[in-house]
Order: sequence, then structure tokens, then C-alpha cells
Amino acid sequence: MPHEIKGLNEECGIFGVFDANDANHLTYFGLHALQHRGQEGAGIVTTDGEQFYQHRDTGLLSQVFAKEGTLDGLHGRSAIGHVRYSTSGNGSLANIQPFLFRFHDGNIALAHNGNLTNARTLRRQLEDEGAVFQSNSDTEILIHLIRKKRDMPFIDALKASLNEVHGGFAFLMLRKDSMIAALDPNGFRPMVVGRMPSGAYVIASESCALDTVGAELVRDVLPGEIIIIDRDGMHIDHFTTDTQLAIDSMEFIYFARPDSNIHGINVHTTRKKMGRMLAKEQPVDADIVVGVPNSSLSAASGYAEAAGLPYEMGLIKNQYVARTFIAPSQTQRDLGVRMKLSAVRGVVAGKRVAVIDDSIVRGTTSRRIVKLLRDAGAAEVHMRIASPAFRFPCFYGIDFSTRAELLAANYDLEGMRQTIGADSLGFLSKSSLIKAIGLPDAGDAPNGGLTVAYFDGQYPTPLYDYEAGYLASLHKQQKMMGDAWNE
Amino acid sequence: MPHEIKGLNEECGIFGVFDANDANHLTYFGLHALQHRGQEGAGIVTTDGEQFYQHRDTGLLSQVFAKEGTLDGLHGRSAIGHVRYSTSGNGSLANIQPFLFRFHDGNIALAHNGNLTNARTLRRQLEDEGAVFQSNSDTEILIHLIRKKRDMPFIDALKASLNEVHGGFAFLMLRKDSMIAALDPNGFRPMVVGRMPSGAYVIASESCALDTVGAELVRDVLPGEIIIIDRDGMHIDHFTTDTQLAIDSMEFIYFARPDSNIHGINVHTTRKKMGRMLAKEQPVDADIVVGVPNSSLSAASGYAEAAGLPYEMGLIKNQYVARTFIAPSQTQRDLGVRMKLSAVRGVVAGKRVAVIDDSIVRGTTSRRIVKLLRDAGAAEVHMRIASPAFRFPCFYGIDFSTRAELLAANYDLEGMRQTIGADSLGFLSKSSLIKAIGLPDAGDAPNGGLTVAYFDGQYPTPLYDYEAGYLASLHKQQKMMGDAWNE
Amino acid sequence: MPHEIKGLNEECGIFGVFDANDANHLTYFGLHALQHRGQEGAGIVTTDGEQFYQHRDTGLLSQVFAKEGTLDGLHGRSAIGHVRYSTSGNGSLANIQPFLFRFHDGNIALAHNGNLTNARTLRRQLEDEGAVFQSNSDTEILIHLIRKKRDMPFIDALKASLNEVHGGFAFLMLRKDSMIAALDPNGFRPMVVGRMPSGAYVIASESCALDTVGAELVRDVLPGEIIIIDRDGMHIDHFTTDTQLAIDSMEFIYFARPDSNIHGINVHTTRKKMGRMLAKEQPVDADIVVGVPNSSLSAASGYAEAAGLPYEMGLIKNQYVARTFIAPSQTQRDLGVRMKLSAVRGVVAGKRVAVIDDSIVRGTTSRRIVKLLRDAGAAEVHMRIASPAFRFPCFYGIDFSTRAELLAANYDLEGMRQTIGADSLGFLSKSSLIKAIGLPDAGDAPNGGLTVAYFDGQYPTPLYDYEAGYLASLHKQQKMMGDAWNE
Amino acid sequence: MPHEIKGLNEECGIFGVFDANDANHLTYFGLHALQHRGQEGAGIVTTDGEQFYQHRDTGLLSQVFAKEGTLDGLHGRSAIGHVRYSTSGNGSLANIQPFLFRFHDGNIALAHNGNLTNARTLRRQLEDEGAVFQSNSDTEILIHLIRKKRDMPFIDALKASLNEVHGGFAFLMLRKDSMIAALDPNGFRPMVVGRMPSGAYVIASESCALDTVGAELVRDVLPGEIIIIDRDGMHIDHFTTDTQLAIDSMEFIYFARPDSNIHGINVHTTRKKMGRMLAKEQPVDADIVVGVPNSSLSAASGYAEAAGLPYEMGLIKNQYVARTFIAPSQTQRDLGVRMKLSAVRGVVAGKRVAVIDDSIVRGTTSRRIVKLLRDAGAAEVHMRIASPAFRFPCFYGIDFSTRAELLAANYDLEGMRQTIGADSLGFLSKSSLIKAIGLPDAGDAPNGGLTVAYFDGQYPTPLYDYEAGYLASLHKQQKMMGDAWNE
Repeated sequence: MPHEIKGLNEECGIFGVFDANDANHLTYFGLHALQHRGQEGAGIVTTDGEQFYQHRDTGLLSQVFAKEGTLDGLHGRSAIGHVRYSTSGNGSLANIQPFLFRFHDGNIALAHNGNLTNARTLRRQLEDEGAVFQSNSDTEILIHLIRKKRDMPFIDALKASLNEVHGGFAFLMLRKDSMIAALDPNGFRPMVVGRMPSGAYVIASESCALDTVGAELVRDVLPGEIIIIDRDGMHIDHFTTDTQLAIDSMEFIYFARPDSNIHGINVHTTRKKMGRMLAKEQPVDADIVVGVPNSSLSAASGYAEAAGLPYEMGLIKNQYVARTFIAPSQTQRDLGVRMKLSAVRGVVAGKRVAVIDDSIVRGTTSRRIVKLLRDAGAAEVHMRIASPAFRFPCFYGIDFSTRAELLAANYDLEGMRQTIGADSLGFLSKSSLIKAIGLPDAGDAPNGGLTVAYFDGQYPTPLYDYEAGYLASLHKQQKMMGDAWNE
Repeated sequence: MPHEIKGLNEECGIFGVFDANDANHLTYFGLHALQHRGQEGAGIVTTDGEQFYQHRDTGLLSQVFAKEGTLDGLHGRSAIGHVRYSTSGNGSLANIQPFLFRFHDGNIALAHNGNLTNARTLRRQLEDEGAVFQSNSDTEILIHLIRKKRDMPFIDALKASLNEVHGGFAFLMLRKDSMIAALDPNGFRPMVVGRMPSGAYVIASESCALDTVGAELVRDVLPGEIIIIDRDGMHIDHFTTDTQLAIDSMEFIYFARPDSNIHGINVHTTRKKMGRMLAKEQPVDADIVVGVPNSSLSAASGYAEAAGLPYEMGLIKNQYVARTFIAPSQTQRDLGVRMKLSAVRGVVAGKRVAVIDDSIVRGTTSRRIVKLLRDAGAAEVHMRIASPAFRFPCFYGIDFSTRAELLAANYDLEGMRQTIGADSLGFLSKSSLIKAIGLPDAGDAPNGGLTVAYFDGQYPTPLYDYEAGYLASLHKQQKMMGDAWNE
Repeated sequence: MPHEIKGLNEECGIFGVFDANDANHLTYFGLHALQHRGQEGAGIVTTDGEQFYQHRDTGLLSQVFAKEGTLDGLHGRSAIGHVRYSTSGNGSLANIQPFLFRFHDGNIALAHNGNLTNARTLRRQLEDEGAVFQSNSDTEILIHLIRKKRDMPFIDALKASLNEVHGGFAFLMLRKDSMIAALDPNGFRPMVVGRMPSGAYVIASESCALDTVGAELVRDVLPGEIIIIDRDGMHIDHFTTDTQLAIDSMEFIYFARPDSNIHGINVHTTRKKMGRMLAKEQPVDADIVVGVPNSSLSAASGYAEAAGLPYEMGLIKNQYVARTFIAPSQTQRDLGVRMKLSAVRGVVAGKRVAVIDDSIVRGTTSRRIVKLLRDAGAAEVHMRIASPAFRFPCFYGIDFSTRAELLAANYDLEGMRQTIGADSLGFLSKSSLIKAIGLPDAGDAPNGGLTVAYFDGQYPTPLYDYEAGYLASLHKQQKMMGDAWNE
Repeated sequence: MPHEIKGLNEECGIFGVFDANDANHLTYFGLHALQHRGQEGAGIVTTDGEQFYQHRDTGLLSQVFAKEGTLDGLHGRSAIGHVRYSTSGNGSLANIQPFLFRFHDGNIALAHNGNLTNARTLRRQLEDEGAVFQSNSDTEILIHLIRKKRDMPFIDALKASLNEVHGGFAFLMLRKDSMIAALDPNGFRPMVVGRMPSGAYVIASESCALDTVGAELVRDVLPGEIIIIDRDGMHIDHFTTDTQLAIDSMEFIYFARPDSNIHGINVHTTRKKMGRMLAKEQPVDADIVVGVPNSSLSAASGYAEAAGLPYEMGLIKNQYVARTFIAPSQTQRDLGVRMKLSAVRGVVAGKRVAVIDDSIVRGTTSRRIVKLLRDAGAAEVHMRIASPAFRFPCFYGIDFSTRAELLAANYDLEGMRQTIGADSLGFLSKSSLIKAIGLPDAGDAPNGGLTVAYFDGQYPTPLYDYEAGYLASLHKQQKMMGDAWNE
């Protein structure tokens, strides 16, 4: 029985604080700094050491907590929160985190950023043993595994359970007297520990959230670690030592905020380096360099500097969001695009434009950008991508739905160029990507401690539920087209 | 009896289209591109040639038309709309435009961007003759002046009335069979005419709105002109020939969108030039150049290029808006700042930073930016401002409340530097500003066709209601401090 | 040129208080008690003796002031408010009252309950003299008439203006130092003065609002009177002595709340009397008496007592409002009716039911009620109406759109019975209606001081703008069918 | 360790339909008719036979489904829904039903009206076996019990599980191919089966919901029954034959809608009978009889008829809801009461008033009503209650929080009279209550098939988790005061 396989998108943001004044507000502020990691839903659970308080709903953080009193009703000095990115259909309230599980011997709140590769199998086993699930999410699985080990002390049960789940996961838990973080053995997702001037510990998906709440970075959570924060302070433990860093390269390319530092590497600086290397690998005879706002501006300025070309704001992003329901007819759909992004006629008219983007997924946005620039009078449009071509889905946390939609899985370079309508097209090489990031913690991990499976289809772990059938077909496809892509 | 004088803020956006499909949606899209000119209220009036339809409310455009059916209920092939920036206290619904005046011989809708300097006197006269006003706005005055001339043909009455009002104004009117635009004799505000592929004419505050709706720029509306659009096409007329271009230099410095062209000059390009000139006038021994997002990025990239320094994203603006009511205590207020703007520690730590901003008004934002950068580890923070110091209010369209709040009206350069806490501070000179903009239409108009009264207190027109008392005090102050500011 | 004539619905509620603590909250509470008089819009204007504050919007009072802070932002010790009933199309924000007119010599807020019969003519004249109107409402006319008499003291100008407008009107005005009420020479609408324990005066459309805010009834405002409330107390004046009471009988039949007293007559008690008289005039051989909730319960209990029959709750009104947009298909439309009103099967099954309603307008509701009762098993359904048949529109305050829709204008008694599907049908006679109300203040006014033009087409005043054409056609129709209706 | 015991309020409404067009809309309409059973939250789950769709939120039904598209997004021909009444603190989203449990072998949606008396014990046992709970609700327990019996066919597992839970429960379940209802062995809560003209079956808490959707009543669900609806029609089964009808008498006294029939007895008719009997048991020398709207109007009209006194609308309920946040000061709190209920001065002034209410719980409302009537001029106020005095909490579905708040648990009759300030006070006897209801299905069940434990403290079942400690204290209290209450 072939089963449907999707790389579920579990790109999310988590934040928690233990034993601090204004735990609810701090968590709100921290999640706000992580809003770029998920806009479909948000929630916060707090505890005063006895009761737990929760609120969660679909929408942006500011919408979820728009009603006065909602945030102030979350009492207590400890809190965890979550912002969620979900694909359509999974956006139901039942999937918004943190989940709060109620037990007579103590509640547990749980937030999760990641994707388990053996979720399907585990869930089936648990159901066969009587477990009751209320969401589609992987996240509920962990709590069932823990509760099956009631005879063990909690931390032991947690460690044992973390060895049963596979894939990419960054868990954050809140109990009445502790906050606990855990990261998968490959450290696919970033997670950091910080400390407030008051001494209170905070944990967040990215360091930018620490800056926002005024916390100092203490350290990155490392693969296989469990971090326990309680009244006695921070305790560092691990559930496995069989670890190997393979952090998702997309965090550096696209996901993370430019002001975050991940394993000591600043994201903006890394992107600028990617741009510089791209300029060397894929030079272009152009008059100006333009970045696609906002995510590609770092790379574009690096490209411009390395190429010795002027860096210009040839594309403008409208900072106001328009309602999407006002778009019935085709003419209006075209207008819809122009409401988000505008080409600056006065800058690009008559010019040979090198436009820098961070990545190409389906190619539709690239095609529209090329058209916008040509409509605004650009003489030539050369597209340069500050990452390698995406040819493979990733099962550790990003949704590419089916690989069939990836432009680079369907066309060679010339086919892609024709599809998007650019005068030329070039990608950053995988080796330059790895070099640009240059993780100091990588040790002798392959690919410099990064997951680059999007580009080469080499997954750092077994794929479990995703293994059968689908992968086979992937490899077949890969073989057919692969030669064109070999660097 | 001394009366309170304020430079009322009437920085707004207007958009209109005549005889087109989807007039309501086009106007929504056009106003969306102008949302940066006003976020306090929005409205649209349409006509099907018989009935008029209107909707307006406080808030962003997307909020005002959030309820499904609201926009679709505005029938007809012609429309005008307005987005409004208002100071607190004037934000009441009664002041949201366009106004719709109902007459048995034909309704008139009216939208206005500007500030009349003789409004107080005219309003008093009109009231003495029995006129009834329902808003605080200057805008109602014009319609009363027109209605007093019922014996004249409408256009004649309009022309005569436009000669009675003084100050800065860009009016847009909709009648059942025509759309009419009028611009004051100094052209203080930008206004452009465009044409849709269908042939329909559109009028907008800035050319970026034309691009968004897919219209071609036809021409800028010139000082003293009346543009009449009807079923026969566009008619260009004028209500006075005693004109002299004096467009508000703040449009180029701060207000307008970078992708707009004003009198043939692209805003981004001009800002970049200001940055280049600033680099020459106010050089600095720094490691990196950082712009304050979003409005100062153009100038910062120009500065970096001219100075031969790396342009870096050392400051990040959070693209998501947080609710402001969550900020009771002082610690939380400090957090509030960090929710909007973040310094990129990985970029600025240990560096000598040249931070480029477009202007300094009260200095509070500058002080916070300096602090943010120092907190993130910047070794030195040198602030460079891509415009001259603001020392005088402007009565043609910008609210500085009272001059007392202008930092540069109260301190000399060193005092300002100390107030904001920077290691050094420098401004662009007025002459370089004028040169950077370089209006081709200026002819022999003073200051290259720009209003630069903010910087030198020399107003291009009489100030009428604003003349007495206050100006005297201004000039006294100016004399005391003036020498420090002479270029 | 024949012009469209409508009996505009200006059935509204007004409330004001002068010089009291919590003027904003008192007005909110007072309007809440008058919410039955208008659900389409609401507004409040307050003054602190210097500034005026206003808020108004479409919707129920609780919706209009739903946002915390909105009501609290209306400062000052004096306030007037308005709830508005509007026909579709006139529901735009521009028509929501109170209006606030701003003059350099003092603002005036104005709320109005009524309909002017010479509004069209006056408005035309005023426009010809340069007046500018911003709403469709009659209400703006008064202020223009007043402002044309700037050489007179305000009260003199007001009196003169009130003699220029005709029709039904109850005006309530707020100035910075006084609150003024005025009632038309026929007193078509109720209006009362009350006094708070603190001594502050309140004015309201109905006495139930006085009870709600804890005020004692002082007196009804009489036809032709002006009531001026200022810091010196209450001053009773009049703008005409040529008065004759002709209060709208529909206030007693349907509009007013049962707990209100109008000119000393309690509304519930009167309705019960109507029911008793109806039982005598239109007896029925039935098992039970059922009233249509909520407006007909008083009459039904009177009918049951006089007839010696059991009074039963055979019809139930759902106290929760369902959204109306959920009703696309015909089956769902039928369900929609059942969501508002339910027949009590256990009560009516197998019974001969006398169902009492207050009035029949178009007959559609009656037809549905008969069907509901039959579906619930009623053996017979006899409808008795506690008012005479509505055959004529009224121009003093109620909207019947066009007379063409009145059931009784199109059918004789048997035709009506067949249309609604009842086993028998009977109406209260006009003379019994007048007797049941029995106004003590009526003196020798015709029809006991009541307007009964709905029933006999005899209007107590000239109809001015409504006179021509339409009335002629009315009278012609009347002649054709009149005999069947003579009592 | 003494544990907190509360009679959790689980007075709710449930509705379901199987295999019908517009299942989502029918369920919305049905729940709307049951809105009086719960206003704190609402939800609907539907299935198209494969997928399940759900939406639930806090608030009224019309608020929960206010956003267009929400209801229409619930696809499929079968649905169940729930409206929830919750005490403060339990109103969180996690407790809003129906719950949807997701299993690889088929989802189950579950809605519940009732209260389990052994929930605490069962939950503890289940947790000890690894079960994970996400709400405070009893409702989750059933599904865990079922899932523990995966080796049995579903219906067998359900029957076995229903024998493990005790207390009052009416469950409604939806599976992809069936809808199942189950009622506890005492039938504490009403539940009925109906049939649409199309043949589709519906199940609802009260028959009024059947009338609203146009369904015919088929039968009441009987104690111990399981009703299974699938494509083959309706199957009647039972999980126990050890049953004895003990329906909650409060359903007849207060909860149910007057147009509902429960076990063949119409609620309005029964209430009227209670009023008649009350008139005989507790006569009063009064001028008029007044009911407290809306729930006591039936009893009041019965009282008036039996007493031969006029039935008057001396109290009016405002049909519009005012926002409660506008009530800071004490004067405003008093106003708050008057916004909901008004005494009709014209009816009660100078009269000796017999006011009929359905019940007295804490006595605060009664005290306010007496004061309202006296303030409106009533000469005497005699309160008559159409049920016996509430002295004991009930554990089958009604929240009295703690018995300490019950007026009749703390005072004898004269003490109660003084507390509420009435001139006299009288209650209906328990025996008359039982006689007035006169259930035909009761057989030889005690108390005529009713639960009357509120009045006599005699519980028809063991109380399990509620037994210890608390009951002992109850009985002690009872002994002290009991004699005063013996009938």
C-alpha cells in the first residue's frame, strides 16, 4: 500500500522564559521577533507554579492577542510560546501550539519546531495501544511516548522517548517547576539559550528574540542535548551522544532573520558572503545590481561590492498588506502582484540589471520579477541566485509539497532560464555555499555541518516513513537529469 | 488675541480614475500604493453617472475595506479615493475624506492633499455668511466658495475659488460626468496624470500608484493647472499663470516612495545622490555604513559607494506590527522600541559604524538608534543625516506641532550630538540638497524649484493666518542661534 | 415633473443630559433603553463646556461603542445621543446622528426624530442660496435656517426657523452651555423631560429611558414648545401657540416600549385595553388566545381576559439573533423564519387558536404565523388585529415605502383573510382605538389628539412636498375601495 | 486529602443530522434553537464520509460562525454540534465541543451534555495507564475507555464503556458512516430523535430544535439506550436494562424552551400548571399578577388564571444586550440592572403586586426585582416561586458552585423573605411540582420519574467521587435546618 508522503512544513518559532516578571509579555515580545518563522497561528502557555493558562488561535501574534486582557490573563512567572507556519488544510485550531496536556500529577505544555520522519509509524503503534490523538501534528506523539514510561522518572522517560522519535525536532516543554528544551541528534533547527539581566533563562529558536527581550546569548543548544531550567538554574544534559551536526542550510539562505547568529555565524554576514562568492562564480556584464526585498538584500549588496557595480533599490516591497480577497479577475490578479512588489522605473529603465534572489522554488515569483523589471524598461535582466538549485524535497522541516513543483527538478539550466524569461541565469555552487557559511562547530561533519539535501538529494539520516517508493522514484529522476547539474 | 498656530499635517494620498472597469478596485489598488502617505483613515467615493456611493473610516485601507462587500458595493466606472495622515485629536471620522457634498443639481466629491494658509480667515468669513461646517478640515472651504458662485459655470466658479484659497493644495474632485484635479500655484505637492491601456485617465499623488494599476505616466500636473477628465478625454486648463514651482523638498527626502518619479526625477536615485554628496561633505573614519530602514537605505548605499566603505544591514526593521497597548511599564516601553528595530550584533560588534538617516526631527529616534547600536557592541557610532537640519516649521503640509520640539531649533550641532549620544554628527548642506535633486522643470525658480523653508525659514509665499506673532518669535529665535547654522 | 414621494422612516430615539457626572455613560444607558426605536446606527456627542467630542457608526449601540475607550473618550458633563432606524440605502455613515456642526462662535450638535414635509422645498431654496449639504437627512436643514439668521439671538433664530419647517419633528440640540429640545406643533412624536436625583435634567424620546437612568419624569414636552436647559435650570418657552395635539397612534400600537408613559398613558395598559375592546368587537369561538411576541402580548392578555379564554404562549420568539447571510436556498429561507419564531406544538395542537397581532402591514409575517400554527397542529387559526387596517402611508415618521405594499390598500377584508390563510380575520375599529388610548391632554383635538391617518387618510396638516400627484392617486384608490372599509 | 467537589455545570445543547443536504446549515439552525442551553461556546464537526471538518470557538453560535465561509467550509452530509454553558475558568477553547479524535482507523467526533460522577476516578485510572488528556472536560474519558477495547467491535466497546461511566450523560457521536446517541440509565437529560421530510434522522437535546429544522419528532431517547443512525436507517439498542427514569426537574422548571415537549409533556403547559397549583398553595391578596420575563411568564399566566387576578406585564426585559464592561462605579452597576429589566410604573404604581418567578438560587436577582417594583410605586410586593426551595446541589448537570451560596440553604422562609425584601414569600411544594409535570413514562419510578434532589437532598444514584466528606457536611447542615422545610 503506497502512502502519500509529504515533507510537512514545520518551520516554526518557539520561545520560553522561566521564573521572570512579565513572563507573558516577554514571551509575546520574543515570539514577535520570531514572527517571520510562522504567520498562521500563535499561542502561549504560562504557569504560576500551580495553574496553567493558555491562549492560542489562528493568525498573526498581534491578531491572536488583539483582545485586551487576553495576554494579561496568562498569569505566572514562566511561559512558552509558539508561532506556526502551516500549509493549507492543516491550519485548524487543533494544530496550533503549544499543546497543553493535563495530568493529575502535573500538566505539561509542549511546543515543537520540526518534522518527525517516523511519526506515521509511531502514531499507528500508539493508537494500537489505545492512544487518543486530537491533532494531525507530530507533536502529540512525544507526550504519548513519555506517558508510556510512567514508572521512570520524568527526565529518564523523556530521554528514552527522544531516542524513539527520528527526524528534525526542537522541543520546548513547560512543567510547573521547570522548562526543558531538546534538540535532535543532527541539530537540524537552531535553538539558543539566553539570560535576562535578572538572571532568568530564556530559550528561543533564534538569537534575534534574545536581543528583543534584552537577554544575553548564553549558548546554542547542541545536537542531542536536553537543557533543563529550574529554580536551581540551568542543567545541561543529553539524551544521546551519537550526534553529528547537520543544520538546515536554508536557515542561513532564507529562514532566519539577518540579525540572528546561529552557531556563532551572523546570518546577514553569511548572506553577504554568498553574494560575494556568487559574483565570482556567476559574473555578469550589467550596469546595476538589484536585490529582491527583503530576504535577498544582503546577498545583493555583497554581489555589488564584489562585482564593483552600483547596488540599487530597483525593486520596492510595499510594507502594507493588502487583502487578498479583492482579486477575482485576471487583470486584478496581475495587479495583486504589483501591490506587493514594484520595479523602480527611474532606476532600471534602460539599464542592464543583475537581479539577486536567495532561491528559486517554483519559479513563478522569478518570472514575475523579470516581467516587472522589463515592464519598467530594463534593457536586460540577469538573474543570479545566492544558493544552489533546489532539486530535492527535505523531510526535516520544509514543505515542498511534491517534488514535481520544483523548477530545478523539471528543467535544466537553459530550460529554467527560458521559463523565467531572464537573459541569463546562474546559481551559487554547493561548495561555495558551505564555504560562505563556514560553521566553526562543524568539526568533521559532512558538508561543513549543514544539510544540503535540497541540492544533492543526500540525506544525513534514514528517511523511515518517507523511504519507500517515493525515494526510489526520486533517484530515478535524478539519474535522468543529474548530469546537467553536476558541479 | 493671539491664536494657536499649527502647521497642520495634511500629508495625504489621493487617487482617482474616470470611466474604467473596476473603478472601485483600481482605486483601492492605487490607494494601497499610496498608503505610506497616510495611515489614519481612508475612503473612496464612486459614481455610476447618476448615484454616488461612498465608504470611509479610520484605519489602514485594508481595515477600512476589510468587510467583504464594502468595496464591491461602490458601483460605477469613476472613483476618487484618499488616504489620510492625521495628528491625534483630528482623527475623527468627520475628517476622513473624500467628502461627498449633495446638491439637487449634482453631487460633488472632494479629496485634498495640502494645507491652506488662509483657511481660518476664509472659514470665518463664510460662517459669517451662513455657511455650515461639519469638519475641522480646510477642505470644506473650497466647496463653500464654489457654491457662492452659483451664477457662474462650474469651472469658472472653481477657478475663481482656487484664486481665493492660499497655501499648498492638490484637489481632486469627482462629479457625475467629470473628474477634476487642481494644483496650487507653487506646486507644493506632487500630482500626476496617467493613462490605462484601456484609455481611461487616472490621477494620483505619486507615479508609483500609476505603476501599480498598470497606467502609463502622461505628465505631472503643473502649478496653477486644472486638469479636467471627461468622456471627451483630458483637458488642460489653469486658474492662474502667476506660478512658481516650489515643491516640498521633504517629498524627495522622506515622504515619497523610492519608485516614484516627481517632475522627472526618481526618488531613490535622488536619495542615493544625497548620500554620495553627504559622504563628501561629512566624511567619517568608519568601518561600515548602515542605513536606518526603510527610508534611509538609498542614501546609505550612496554614502557607502562614495566613501568606499562596505554597506551593511546593521539595523533590521521588523516587518510585523505589534500592538502598542501591551506596554505599561518602562522596561516594556524599552522592549517596544526593540520590537520595531533591531541592531545586528554580528555586523556591528566591534565596528566603527557610520549610520545614515534621512532627517532628525525631535531626536528621540536618533538617540534610540545610537543606543541600540552601542548595546550591540558598536565601537563608535557616527550619525550622518542626508538633509539639512530642520529648524523651522512648514505651513504647506507637514506637522511639526510647535517648533519648540525641533531638535535643531534648540541646540547647536554639538548640543545635538550630545543629545543623541553619537560620536559625531553631520548634516547635508542645503545647497547640496538642491543640487542632488536637480529639478529640470525649475527654470529660474529660487532654490531650484524647491521649498526649503524647513532649513532656512524663508517661505516662498505670504503666510496669511500664520503670519502674526509666531513668525516674529521665530525670527527672534533664529537671530539668536542662526550663526551656528550658516553654511 | 412628478417627484418620488416616500414617507421616510425617521422613527428614532433621542436622549440628552445636561451638567451631570458620567454624562457619556448616562446617555449610553438612556439610548440602550431606546434601542427599540432604531437599530441601524447610533451616536453620542458630548461637551465639557469648551471642546465637543463625538462618536457615531452604523449598527447597534453596543457595537458602535464596542471598542473599549470609545465611550470613555467622550468627555464632559453634557451629552446628547441618537439611535437611528433607517431604510436600506440611507444607512450610510453620513446620515448617522447626532450631527456636529462646527462654528467659530460655538459648535452645535443636533439630533432629530421626525420627518419634515417641506424638506425638499427648503433644501432647494437653501442650496440656491449657497448652502452645502453632506447627508440625505432632513436634519441638516434646521441648522442652515438658523445660521441664516445670525443677526438674531440664537433662541430667536431657532424659534423663527422652527416656524419655517413643517411636518413631525422632535429636535434635541447641545451647545457648550445649554441643551435645547423642540417639538412640532402637533406633537407627532413623544418627548419627555426628567430629572436626576442630582438635579440634572435629562430629555428623552420615551419615559422608559428616564427609569433606566434613575430620573424622575418631570413632564411631557408639549406641541410647539422649546425647552432650554442651562446652568440656571429648565426654561419652558414656545415657538408657536398655534398647536393641536396629534400624536402618532402607532406609538401606542407598536413603537413605544410597554413601560413608557406617554402624556400620562401607560403603553402596556393601553395595549391591554385595545385587546379587551378587540375581544368585544371581534369575538371568536376559540380554545386559546395567543399573542405574537413580543409586541402583541399585552393586547393578547387583554383579549383573553375579556373573552374569558385561556391566554397561552403558543408562539415563542428566539431571544438570540442568527446571522442572516446563512440563507441561500428556499428551504433555508423557510428555516430562517423558524429561527425567529416557533409555534408551541404542545399548546396549539388540536386547538382553535385566536392569534392576536398588533398590526398588519404587508401581510407576509401574518401569513407565516398562520402557517407556523397550522404546521404545529392548530385546528383553526383566527387572526385578530389590535388596530385598524393600515391603508394609508404616514408622512410624519413611518416608512411604508409605497402604499402599494400595504395589504389593506389592495384587498378587502375577505381578500386579506385569504392572503394570510387564516380561518377568520378581524380588526379593531378606529373609534375603539381612540377610546382605548383616551389621551387626557387631548382637549377638543380631533381623533382624541391622535394621528390616525394610516387608517382613514385624513392628515392633520398640509402635506407640502408630498401633496401633488401622489395624494390624488391615493384618493382615487380610496374611493374605489373605501366602502368596504367604512366602519 | 480532601478534594474539591463541584457540581460542574454541564447544561449544554447537542444536535446532529445524518446523511442530509446542508448538514452544516441544518446543524447551525438546530443549535440556534438550543442556544438557551449554552452561550459560552459552540462548535460543529461534519464529515463527507472520508474527511472530517470542524470549527469551534468561545461565544454565541452567531459569533463563532460570524466569518463568512466558516460554516460553508464544513463539508459533508452528516454533522454534530454543541453549544456549551461553562462556569468561569473552564471557558477555555480546549473545552469547547464537539471534540474530534483522530485515529488511523477512523475519526470520532463527540459531543456531551451531562456530568459524570466518577470522572475523577476514571481519569486517574486512565492516566495511570498512559492516557493523555487535553481538556478539563469529562467528555474525553469516554473515548479513552472505548479505545482501551480495540479488540471488540466498536458498538460493543461503546456499550461496555458506557457501563463504566456514572452520572448524567447524553452523548452524541459522529463517525464517517454513522451517528450514535447514548443516554444514561436515569435519563437525567432530555434527548429526542426526529426525522426530516427527506427521511434523514436528526438527534437533539430538545424537540424545539426539530421544529426549527422542519423535522418530525420520532421519539424520546430512553434511559440506557443507544441509538445508531446509519445508511440503513435507525437502530435502537441499549447498553443496560437496569434503568429508572429520573429526569432533572429543572428542565421543566427553568432550562428547557417552552415550546419543547419532553417525554410527551409540553414545557409551557407544565409551567402554567405549576403556576395554577402555586396559586392554590400560596394564595395572595393582590391586585395584579406579574411574571419575571422571560422564563416565568407561563407560570405567571397560570397563577393569574387560577387566582382570578389580572395578568400584567409589570416587568419588561430589554431585548438588546448591553456591554458589561461599561460599569465601573456603584451607581453604574445599579444602572446595569435597570438596563436588563424594567418595572412598568404605569402598571404597578399603587398596586399590590404578586410577582411570580421560577426559582430562587442566590436571592440577589429576587432582591433587585422587589426593589425595582417598589421604586416604580408598587404598594406591596408578594413573591411566589413556581418551584420548591433549592437547598441542595445537583451532581447530574447543574452548577451551584458551593451549596453555601444557596439562599434556602442558609435561611428559613422568614429569613429569605427579609433578605429579598418582599412583603410575603411562598414556594410550590415538591408534591405539586411532581403532579404538575405528571410524566406519563414514569411508571413506578420515585418522584414521578423526576430528579428532585435539589429540594430534598435525596440522590437517585450513588455520588461516587462526590460522596465523601462533602455529603456528610451537607447532611449535618440539613439536620440543623431541616425541620423548617418539611412539607
